[in-house]
Amino acid sequence: MSLPRTVRIVEVGARDGLQNETTEVPTATKIELIERLAAAGLRTVEAGAFVSPKKVPQMAGSKEVFRGLERRAGTAYPALVPNMSGFEAAIEAGVTEIAVFVSASEGFSQHNIGCSRAESLDRLRDVADAAAVRNIRMRGYLSCIAGCPYDGAVAPDEVAAMADALVALGCHEISLGDTIGIGTAGQIRNIIERVSAHVALEKLAMHFHDTYGQGVANVLASLQQGITTFDSSVAGLGGCPFAPGASGNVATEDVIYLLAGLGIETGVDLMAVATTGDWISRHLGRSNAARAGKALLAAKQKGKAHGK
Amino acid sequence: MSLPRTVRIVEVGARDGLQNETTEVPTATKIELIERLAAAGLRTVEAGAFVSPKKVPQMAGSKEVFRGLERRAGTAYPALVPNMSGFEAAIEAGVTEIAVFVSASEGFSQHNIGCSRAESLDRLRDVADAAAVRNIRMRGYLSCIAGCPYDGAVAPDEVAAMADALVALGCHEISLGDTIGIGTAGQIRNIIERVSAHVALEKLAMHFHDTYGQGVANVLASLQQGITTFDSSVAGLGGCPFAPGASGNVATEDVIYLLAGLGIETGVDLMAVATTGDWISRHLGRSNAARAGKALLAAKQKGKAHGK
Repeated sequence: MSLPRTVRIVEVGARDGLQNETTEVPTATKIELIERLAAAGLRTVEAGAFVSPKKVPQMAGSKEVFRGLERRAGTAYPALVPNMSGFEAAIEAGVTEIAVFVSASEGFSQHNIGCSRAESLDRLRDVADAAAVRNIRMRGYLSCIAGCPYDGAVAPDEVAAMADALVALGCHEISLGDTIGIGTAGQIRNIIERVSAHVALEKLAMHFHDTYGQGVANVLASLQQGITTFDSSVAGLGGCPFAPGASGNVATEDVIYLLAGLGIETGVDLMAVATTGDWISRHLGRSNAARAGKALLAAKQKGKAHGK
Repeated sequence: MSLPRTVRIVEVGARDGLQNETTEVPTATKIELIERLAAAGLRTVEAGAFVSPKKVPQMAGSKEVFRGLERRAGTAYPALVPNMSGFEAAIEAGVTEIAVFVSASEGFSQHNIGCSRAESLDRLRDVADAAAVRNIRMRGYLSCIAGCPYDGAVAPDEVAAMADALVALGCHEISLGDTIGIGTAGQIRNIIERVSAHVALEKLAMHFHDTYGQGVANVLASLQQGITTFDSSVAGLGGCPFAPGASGNVATEDVIYLLAGLGIETGVDLMAVATTGDWISRHLGRSNAARAGKALLAAKQKGKAHGK
């Protein structure tokens, strides 16, 4: 079985993660989180969203985050933008890489952003044009690839068609998201096969949630299909609004632990991420959902207690 | 990729799970747990251990458990026995299938049972003979296959040699346990390859802990190697004495969710296991570590709230 030699992690804890946490996080803490993640070697750290503060109060301070952030050369700090006003606010705040989102299912599109999938693509055209003019890279999130809380099953061919449309829109990378964490390995493999018939594998990232405990297994299945980019969230930050109390994004620590064990390079200092995950979990008053993170820190603590 | 069509789950929550929980569980609750698991379709439900009540207080009531248990035809209720006095107590309590354990690493053998690996095999010979005479099936647990808290790395060839020795002792099945949950998919694949060069694949079961979040991914990797028997624990009961606060056995719910998604039959009613996992977690005052179990129950609750 041939696996990739290197993998890029797109750290989404400070955006997709925090967005789905209930505890409010001060801007200074967000900045510290992002800076610690970048310092740990993560080369793409999603840092905010320029969305309606009414709809997503957790992202209200994104302008201040970008203004205050000390950026490292060679690290990208994308921000999510839903429309032109978000795009303009992002540019004003100094954002140099953006992400847009659409849904693979009609029901989620209607419920989440109040328009059809086709309309959601149309609405993004001015953002895409403006980004192209400014030479700003645009990532495309495609949600509900393995199932939808409203429509149920989602056909892989529909996922492929929407991924194709995002590439046509100008996205350099498509993040295929199992938003409700419902997919299992065979299904994920099937989706990747179908989508990669339309979009080059190198342009695909996989984005898993651990709602049903399948996150790491789905990463493994994706690696076996040749995927080399994965979204993950420090400490498994995030939740699932469609399954209250359920787990959030697959944890960066658990994914990097897998990759390290497989001999796949990420350039990330796992212990630094684990320490950061522990720190932000305490800040949020939640338990650390990164199993590898908790175990590594417990083992270190035990070693210390024994004078090692 | 060809995967098995059916898989047998060995439910170890009531023994390996509870043994590593700190909360004391009344005998009646243990009996209810075992009976509910068997009623959910699990055909092998480990039900107790005849070990020193000083060393393992949680298993002190195993005699009463077996005496009180209503057994289903076609379901096996193995009990762990460490030596002849345990064997005799088990037989007296009506046990008809036993499990013995040894370690793949020298350090764990010395620390856990106070003798070398070779001695541990020697000590089990009278148990094996007595079991053979009575036509009682004997399962062999082999621990620390992917790493040892004392010795560190464990060579796959040593795992293979010990597995071989357990077969020679008369074990019908060898459960290869990653006791500290440290292994990743490539390593697990390598271990299975090496061991199956000595012991037929059909005789091997894999036993994973989720300490580093790799349990379900390691099940997937094992399926790809042709393994058809897995140990797991309802609600992810158990813990890791070598990483306090870390996760326990891989959760039965998460494993069955994976298998169902892959179209692999287990004969188990997942929702019945999820409900049982929720119930025993409440009894223990711990959070339910089965992600699929929690998500399924949350989705059901949400459906109910919406009158579905």
